[in-house]
Amino acid sequence: MTTPETRLAELGLSLPQPTTLPPNLKLPFSFINIRGNRALISGHPKSAPDGSIAGPYGQVGKDLSTDEAYAEAREVGLSILANLKAEIGELSRIAGWVRVFGMVNSAPGYSEQHLAINGFSDLIIGAFGPEIGAHARSAIGTHGLPMNFAIEIEAEALLKE
Amino acid sequence: MTTPETRLAELGLSLPQPTTLPPNLKLPFSFINIRGNRALISGHPKSAPDGSIAGPYGQVGKDLSTDEAYAEAREVGLSILANLKAEIGELSRIAGWVRVFGMVNSAPGYSEQHLAINGFSDLIIGAFGPEIGAHARSAIGTHGLPMNFAIEIEAEALLKE
Amino acid sequence: MTTPETRLAELGLSLPQPTTLPPNLKLPFSFINIRGNRALISGHPKSAPDGSIAGPYGQVGKDLSTDEAYAEAREVGLSILANLKAEIGELSRIAGWVRVFGMVNSAPGYSEQHLAINGFSDLIIGAFGPEIGAHARSAIGTHGLPMNFAIEIEAEALLKE
Repeated sequence: MTTPETRLAELGLSLPQPTTLPPNLKLPFSFINIRGNRALISGHPKSAPDGSIAGPYGQVGKDLSTDEAYAEAREVGLSILANLKAEIGELSRIAGWVRVFGMVNSAPGYSEQHLAINGFSDLIIGAFGPEIGAHARSAIGTHGLPMNFAIEIEAEALLKE
Repeated sequence: MTTPETRLAELGLSLPQPTTLPPNLKLPFSFINIRGNRALISGHPKSAPDGSIAGPYGQVGKDLSTDEAYAEAREVGLSILANLKAEIGELSRIAGWVRVFGMVNSAPGYSEQHLAINGFSDLIIGAFGPEIGAHARSAIGTHGLPMNFAIEIEAEALLKE
Repeated sequence: MTTPETRLAELGLSLPQPTTLPPNLKLPFSFINIRGNRALISGHPKSAPDGSIAGPYGQVGKDLSTDEAYAEAREVGLSILANLKAEIGELSRIAGWVRVFGMVNSAPGYSEQHLAINGFSDLIIGAFGPEIGAHARSAIGTHGLPMNFAIEIEAEALLKE
């Protein structure tokens, strides 16, 4: 049976460990918040393979190109999928993606936020297919992000009942 | 029977064609994503009458005045309603508006994002009435938007079961 | 029985009056929009004890420090809880928090939006406890906010059926 996990493997992608925080950092919110069949996904940065927070940092359009931001948005997606899987067990429990909100820390005049966030959307469609992976989306340019992240992605998915 | 479509006509407004994309542009997300009875609406720009993407472009507070942005936000709303109607058939299938998120590409120091996005809110209340049209809302100033859009509006509505 | 209201009192906090608007200001949206068991909460500023809108104003990182913004985000939370309570009667009707979106009007280079919005998250966890209070969250830097607010917080909570 084809699962999101096998599709990711076919794409040559692997999930990092779930996000681990430095001992001095305690977040008063949940990376993944399950309410009924809704999985609410907090704004995520990228994780290193060991789960530590790994940026990316800086402004897109100055410190990162759009192509680099596209690749980073895919990495943010892998971090999200790792945290989701840790919470729900198997990614095939996702019945459908709902909404994606892509925040791009933008240099003045930068206007390719949509192309950057495509790195995330393409990952989701690739792993879940066009029906389950379908999502509404907005991409915006921010004036700063926490810890100087270059990209932060928030989303919602529905779980099978 | 009064429908949102007849109310729009009474207001002298007509819907553009559903959004059509240039042949070289393929979006990895859906303008409208239906999940159960939820209609998730991607961040939309304005459409020309033929459905082609038509801005508006630039920074509000510099390239557009608040009054111009108000009128543009109404146009964005008409584009959203056109895509919604293409997806669900009749706007009277909407049981209630849920949430509106208005993104305004803002010049430094601009602080009338709420007045700009009122163009959208007034349209929704006008077309759907105060009960079905009621919505929670945020309006923010962004530091850039995709394709240099001046306004982008995301929303959620509920469909009748 | 311990309620969110008694927990707030134990924390030495009290709710302002529900938000009242100046006579010349009419909002085409609802501070709180109830749809089924979902309570959608519009982007809120702070209220003075009498319910009048009270900022805070300016850019965080320039006009307000992170510590000041943390305290202001808690005040925004009290304003939200006051409007919620006015709508639903008792805060114990909330079955769970869903999502929080914290918008911080940011000076160039400011990168502690998450620490500012912790003022809201800590309030919610403090008043509702770790299970009902759990929420997904994003925090972003904006380039301007309506009326030059320094902070605006949007959220969603679920009501008991």
